[in-house]
Amino acid sequence: LNTAIELDLFTAISEGNRTVKALAEKCQVSHRGVRILANFLTKIGFLEKKRDEYGLTLDSKIFCDRRSPAYLRETLAFLLSSPLIEGFNGLTQAVRKGGTSLEQEGTVTDDHPEWVTFARAMIPLMAGPAKWISQYVTQGKKSPMKVLDIAAGHGLFGIEIAKANPSAKIVAVDWPNVLALAEGNAKTAGVFDRYESMRGNAFQLDFGMGYDLVLLTNFLHHFDPETCENLLRKLYASLN
Amino acid sequence: LNTAIELDLFTAISEGNRTVKALAEKCQVSHRGVRILANFLTKIGFLEKKRDEYGLTLDSKIFCDRRSPAYLRETLAFLLSSPLIEGFNGLTQAVRKGGTSLEQEGTVTDDHPEWVTFARAMIPLMAGPAKWISQYVTQGKKSPMKVLDIAAGHGLFGIEIAKANPSAKIVAVDWPNVLALAEGNAKTAGVFDRYESMRGNAFQLDFGMGYDLVLLTNFLHHFDPETCENLLRKLYASLN
Repeated sequence: LNTAIELDLFTAISEGNRTVKALAEKCQVSHRGVRILANFLTKIGFLEKKRDEYGLTLDSKIFCDRRSPAYLRETLAFLLSSPLIEGFNGLTQAVRKGGTSLEQEGTVTDDHPEWVTFARAMIPLMAGPAKWISQYVTQGKKSPMKVLDIAAGHGLFGIEIAKANPSAKIVAVDWPNVLALAEGNAKTAGVFDRYESMRGNAFQLDFGMGYDLVLLTNFLHHFDPETCENLLRKLYASLN
Repeated sequence: LNTAIELDLFTAISEGNRTVKALAEKCQVSHRGVRILANFLTKIGFLEKKRDEYGLTLDSKIFCDRRSPAYLRETLAFLLSSPLIEGFNGLTQAVRKGGTSLEQEGTVTDDHPEWVTFARAMIPLMAGPAKWISQYVTQGKKSPMKVLDIAAGHGLFGIEIAKANPSAKIVAVDWPNVLALAEGNAKTAGVFDRYESMRGNAFQLDFGMGYDLVLLTNFLHHFDPETCENLLRKLYASLN
């Protein structure tokens, strides 16, 4: 699948290059290689084949065509990134130790660059859910609302709330290098005047008080129960 | 699965270490690590869990317990060997080229050491089939029989025929380093006096004539149709 994304095979098919010959020319690859790859992708459900012509399936139309908003190339870049692959390569050592075999605490080490990759990776998958969550939590209300977004990443969860409610203010917490990405997205969305960044470690920062809502997305699964419980108490105390 | 095999977790369970605590002590690993690993293996069907005790499933009894003849540790060593992993890492380049991205011709390069790993790897999986095939092709006959075993590997397919028919003679073809392993297995099986080695490339060797049977196992899928057809003609001509 990653090879097909790298060669932009799905987009090529979507643009009308439907035979082995046309795909080999368009993607600049060998006939034999693209034939075997396309037949395998057909077998696992990412392509369909009628006579000698390949077509996209529903899933590959949504996730594998470069022109789709849910195009998952960046997501794969995270899933196949070297820290994650290295982590899996060291699985036996991780079981011995009871934690990651990567240096220090692996990806939960302070300011780990992997979270910028992750923030980029999740945009195609989370743009939709972020919209749906914002509708659910704002319920069309336009009254003032202070939102704390823990481990904001790409920032979309908070940004969509700011878009849905012009009186909402967002306080985004994450590492500095990740917040630079979230701030860029807030500017693009036109809500940067209501977007505040709080840089640092969510377990150590003082969030202040007076929040109407806390977003805590894709976060707790990294930590042990006691650490999670302590954070949840701290967040609960910050709420109105 | 590979981590569990490396830690010999399945054998430990089979020997009666059924709880997280007992397994952590026996395998010299952390409680947390072995708990997560064992729960995952339960989820994917390699273990079953009743209350706090783990047990083997039918599959893991046969393939994952060190004391089983079909124990697949060596098989995994092949499937996860560096030439195979490297080959998959270079898949995009392979599609461009229409062949392996590994040096030269990859694992089909003359005398590639991977085939010794492969020959060892396949013994647990092929010991049973080799017996069944020998029963099928000998049908209990004890008359003289000359058998050509192409890409003999571990040698078991020919060796089982030699065991089933005391008048059968085997000519085994493979690279020298692989045949050393097959010869060892023929000695262990007590059929080495009827076991002849022919070292080299199956496409170039002169097999001679007068064969009653040709074994061509796990071989054709590496080559293109024309190469396979030429070999099959050559083999057909060598038969009585």
